[in-house]
Amino acid sequence: MGDAAVRAFEGSFVQALLLTLDIAGTFAFAVSGASAGVKRELDLFGVLLLSFAAAAAGGIARDMLIGAIPPAALSDWRYLVTALVAGAITFWWHPLVDRLKNPVQLFDAVGLALFAVAGAQKALAYGLSPTMAALLGMLTGIGGGIVRDMLLAGVPSVLRSELYAVAALAGAVVVVSGDALQLNAAVAALLGAASCFVLRLAAIRYRIRLPVSKAARKPR
Amino acid sequence: MGDAAVRAFEGSFVQALLLTLDIAGTFAFAVSGASAGVKRELDLFGVLLLSFAAAAAGGIARDMLIGAIPPAALSDWRYLVTALVAGAITFWWHPLVDRLKNPVQLFDAVGLALFAVAGAQKALAYGLSPTMAALLGMLTGIGGGIVRDMLLAGVPSVLRSELYAVAALAGAVVVVSGDALQLNAAVAALLGAASCFVLRLAAIRYRIRLPVSKAARKPR
Amino acid sequence: MGDAAVRAFEGSFVQALLLTLDIAGTFAFAVSGASAGVKRELDLFGVLLLSFAAAAAGGIARDMLIGAIPPAALSDWRYLVTALVAGAITFWWHPLVDRLKNPVQLFDAVGLALFAVAGAQKALAYGLSPTMAALLGMLTGIGGGIVRDMLLAGVPSVLRSELYAVAALAGAVVVVSGDALQLNAAVAALLGAASCFVLRLAAIRYRIRLPVSKAARKPR
Repeated sequence: MGDAAVRAFEGSFVQALLLTLDIAGTFAFAVSGASAGVKRELDLFGVLLLSFAAAAAGGIARDMLIGAIPPAALSDWRYLVTALVAGAITFWWHPLVDRLKNPVQLFDAVGLALFAVAGAQKALAYGLSPTMAALLGMLTGIGGGIVRDMLLAGVPSVLRSELYAVAALAGAVVVVSGDALQLNAAVAALLGAASCFVLRLAAIRYRIRLPVSKAARKPR
Repeated sequence: MGDAAVRAFEGSFVQALLLTLDIAGTFAFAVSGASAGVKRELDLFGVLLLSFAAAAAGGIARDMLIGAIPPAALSDWRYLVTALVAGAITFWWHPLVDRLKNPVQLFDAVGLALFAVAGAQKALAYGLSPTMAALLGMLTGIGGGIVRDMLLAGVPSVLRSELYAVAALAGAVVVVSGDALQLNAAVAALLGAASCFVLRLAAIRYRIRLPVSKAARKPR
Repeated sequence: MGDAAVRAFEGSFVQALLLTLDIAGTFAFAVSGASAGVKRELDLFGVLLLSFAAAAAGGIARDMLIGAIPPAALSDWRYLVTALVAGAITFWWHPLVDRLKNPVQLFDAVGLALFAVAGAQKALAYGLSPTMAALLGMLTGIGGGIVRDMLLAGVPSVLRSELYAVAALAGAVVVVSGDALQLNAAVAALLGAASCFVLRLAAIRYRIRLPVSKAARKPR
């Protein structure tokens, strides 16, 4: 991307939108990371590290892949502060966070929707093709959860959960399609995030799953 | 690397060779990733994600380390389509894939050979030293398998298998040596891939292993 | 960072200091990685790979995040040779390495201190903010241990150990503060490394731990 394009992107309305979505998603994923850390009995610092890793990993991966160096999560202190505040709240008031049923899943769904949308928009703004922008949106959404689960030495729930990555991809596809149809960016973002969120929650509620290969179910 | 050098590289015959090797290796590793995913009972989307991760991770790591941003696996749709087709075939016709004995191992060996060679050539083309080009060739070869196994929460087989990383390194060293001796690039690539493939298959067949430290075998 | 700034940085005294710290830290972490590999009965090549991964991962992550491509660990052969020598020594003379009590922990503490300091200084030199430079110093310190443990399919000890990441952060903060106070860089590095090393050893010796969330200790 040329410098002029970068400047145009940086000055645009899209960037303000991206920042807002990113910060809200950061909070949501940080709570999900911190909850997982608290359950595995990590100490305060471990919980805060996991908050930041879960919140920032997807966006950092996206930024490194599209060449936005240093990644926004490192150059902008607001991501760090948001993740630490969310982690600290979860650490000290975990019962409160826990009273919301399945908080990890709920916050995960919010973060997933916001990050998938923000990731797809940033990739488009950096000139990637629609297909790759949709995939990078999905990666931005699922990257934090993958790193969170890998740091806790488990198979990422992303690979097993009900329409997890599918929902992120759907949200990102809506954003990319909106861009192709020259829809207003904020409207497309809202539609994309809502699609992802509703799809994910419906999948959890009604236990919708994609098929497993018949080969896997054979006795071995 | 200067812009002129990049353009020269992009226009060269070497690039066409690299692309062919890369696509073939992508198919091979995607089958290996999908097979592992099917065995762990991942759903369709999880299997496709693992196909792409196993196929693309080594090349993406190489491209990020040498500064080829965005990585070829993201900017060129052919990698994605190849990985998805290979994943879908494995998902729906797994018995067919399985009839080949030890398909994961066989496809792994093919992918290893092709990626090690392509990785070393790309690193050389980007001006890295021969030693580092050989190591990056090895990383390109073993990166996909490492990510595949880490996503499934296991110790990478790369760290335990019969001459796995050694075979990749051998193939990459042949390519780098051929370059130093000004051998034709296609010939060097063929020799390198053959060395890696034969070495790996021989190691599996005859159970050739490197020594383990005596300290490890002491009772603890 | 502009080219002029890069050249100024490359020519500076700070760079010589960074290189020395980096090489010493590389040796220390490579021994820690190799020890872990020997204990898990990896073969010679696996042990050497783990040496290099443990030694180089933190610095590579830092360099990729600040845009120093290709990373120093790949463009400078001294890191590779240092890691391989340390790995080979550990592989063949493990009893000797083992006679030092808890060698993994001791070498880890040395590597942690040196890398945290070197990482913070390099991030400052590349123009990152003091807060982010401190965090990148911490990441440089803990990154190798995280990758080492993840490759062996365990929860990174970083997330559980006595003041591990805290000590790295403390060392990096000293360096960043020294820079803000215009202290001599070598003095600040020495103070930072000493703070980190002493804090970590004291935490191991007296089993100092950060608190765990009360929520974690409830019966579930």
